[in-house]
Amino acid sequence: MNIDYKKAAELLKNCGNAYILIHQSPDGDCIGSGMTVYHILKSMGKKARILCSDDIPKRYSFITEDYIDEEFEPDSIISVDVADTNLLGKYKEQYGDKVDLCIDHHISNTLYAKNTLVCPDASAACEVLFEVLKEMDIIPDNRMAACIYTGIATDTGCFKYENASSRCHEIVASIKKYSDINYAQINRRLFDIKSRGQLKMESAVSDKMEYYLDGKCTMITVTLDLLESLNVDLGEIDGLAGIPLQYEDAEVGVTIKQRDENSYKISMRSANDVNVSDICASLGGGGHVKAAGCLIHGTLEEVKAKIVNAVEKGMKK
Amino acid sequence: MNIDYKKAAELLKNCGNAYILIHQSPDGDCIGSGMTVYHILKSMGKKARILCSDDIPKRYSFITEDYIDEEFEPDSIISVDVADTNLLGKYKEQYGDKVDLCIDHHISNTLYAKNTLVCPDASAACEVLFEVLKEMDIIPDNRMAACIYTGIATDTGCFKYENASSRCHEIVASIKKYSDINYAQINRRLFDIKSRGQLKMESAVSDKMEYYLDGKCTMITVTLDLLESLNVDLGEIDGLAGIPLQYEDAEVGVTIKQRDENSYKISMRSANDVNVSDICASLGGGGHVKAAGCLIHGTLEEVKAKIVNAVEKGMKK
Repeated sequence: MNIDYKKAAELLKNCGNAYILIHQSPDGDCIGSGMTVYHILKSMGKKARILCSDDIPKRYSFITEDYIDEEFEPDSIISVDVADTNLLGKYKEQYGDKVDLCIDHHISNTLYAKNTLVCPDASAACEVLFEVLKEMDIIPDNRMAACIYTGIATDTGCFKYENASSRCHEIVASIKKYSDINYAQINRRLFDIKSRGQLKMESAVSDKMEYYLDGKCTMITVTLDLLESLNVDLGEIDGLAGIPLQYEDAEVGVTIKQRDENSYKISMRSANDVNVSDICASLGGGGHVKAAGCLIHGTLEEVKAKIVNAVEKGMKK
Repeated sequence: MNIDYKKAAELLKNCGNAYILIHQSPDGDCIGSGMTVYHILKSMGKKARILCSDDIPKRYSFITEDYIDEEFEPDSIISVDVADTNLLGKYKEQYGDKVDLCIDHHISNTLYAKNTLVCPDASAACEVLFEVLKEMDIIPDNRMAACIYTGIATDTGCFKYENASSRCHEIVASIKKYSDINYAQINRRLFDIKSRGQLKMESAVSDKMEYYLDGKCTMITVTLDLLESLNVDLGEIDGLAGIPLQYEDAEVGVTIKQRDENSYKISMRSANDVNVSDICASLGGGGHVKAAGCLIHGTLEEVKAKIVNAVEKGMKK
């Protein structure tokens, strides 16, 4: 059942002790919204526990450091920023069909919960939670403010993307007004800092960036050989997909990651109007208009030729 | 004389045909605020002309494309985002002592103008201009909105820095509400895209980044040999100073640029609490607490040793 802010506020007030589910491969928005619900429940004297199928990256320790994990029998199951029960990973089987309240911002939400508050116009689940807090007459304290900010900043790319709406700036204006936190330091943690391995990997792939179709298609490649020679962890090669679009004339940025001798995972990003979802579909994959992917088999040279050919066709549309 | 928003609004209404002075090495804030004043004056049927000692980088063409340069005798001289007449460059002599109205946000403003509206709490001169527009009952149209946004986004590092105040988010919320512009595309132009030369230079210096003092001091170096071997323009090596602080444990990030055989220009940035103004002062330079610089003579090895020694002492304070 779809519910509104008021009903969600009421359910949170009356939920008893609760488990809070967030999605696998956790990011700033699900961690921020999970911790916001945690703080709300704890402030009402309830027990709360966050369940996530994967470990929380240490990058987010500044909002999870006051989290205390305790075991108890829950009265309610709440999920935040989880569009589909498949994203619950190892908790899907046990809790997938038992979620009492889901708070989310994905238009693709499958309405798996008994009660779902989904706001597709919101930049982040944390934005939705801010509105629920307002309904509850709670002004976010410093801890909640840090969580809500983290979610909104993460999902808008620090206010760079199209979803950085007027409303999301209004909310940030409000939480900055009523909190006393070093937001610049949060931004540095979320967006700027990298490990030595990441820095090595980024400069290695940038240095060998290839320019096709008059520079409109840029391409970086991570081979298994490169990974081995740089001796970096697989976790350190996330976040590369933004690099090819740094080139000023690039329309389509391609990141190729070798999986095994003859197969390559492709991430494709569009800077403006080219639909990379269509291009990846023509290569057997799919995704969003501005960010999509596919898997291609063949030698690296064959793979690159297939990609350039598909991008060229896609750009003519 | 220091004036308030109301008086500044009044002076703008009654200024006649005007020249608008912006600072040398123009950035998004002085160009954005200069163009905002230009649009205000043109909308009131006045002539307006922007004077800048340097060329406007093409990165900002999206807000200057409807500017038409015409010659006329000005009734008034207005300056925006200019803290000191030295920043007028080649226009200092002719107009430095003839400025009727200055609109600025630098606490260091020397009050050289007949009337000065300076708001040190404002993130950008464009933020001050938004308040003046409000006083004039003007709701920024799309063109003005793009200019004001560009100034605020530039000076706050896309809302990353400490000066991204509650008020600046409120203002952005307001201009996004009343305008219809692709802000994501503006952000890409302002913050993401780079030329091939910049990309080559960045990966070359990142690849050779050095880690001192347990990684708390990171250092990149641009030698004349490197510049020559990569064949990039001097203008393409701006913006490197942020690279050393990308390393997660870095407290002080140092960028060394060779000037001639035995002299090196140093830029120093602080991630948190280390005062790099003091450190650079101990090396004969100066600057701000979080961003400072100096010039050191000697061989590259000597220069690096001097820097590491000074940073080590500075970190102990």
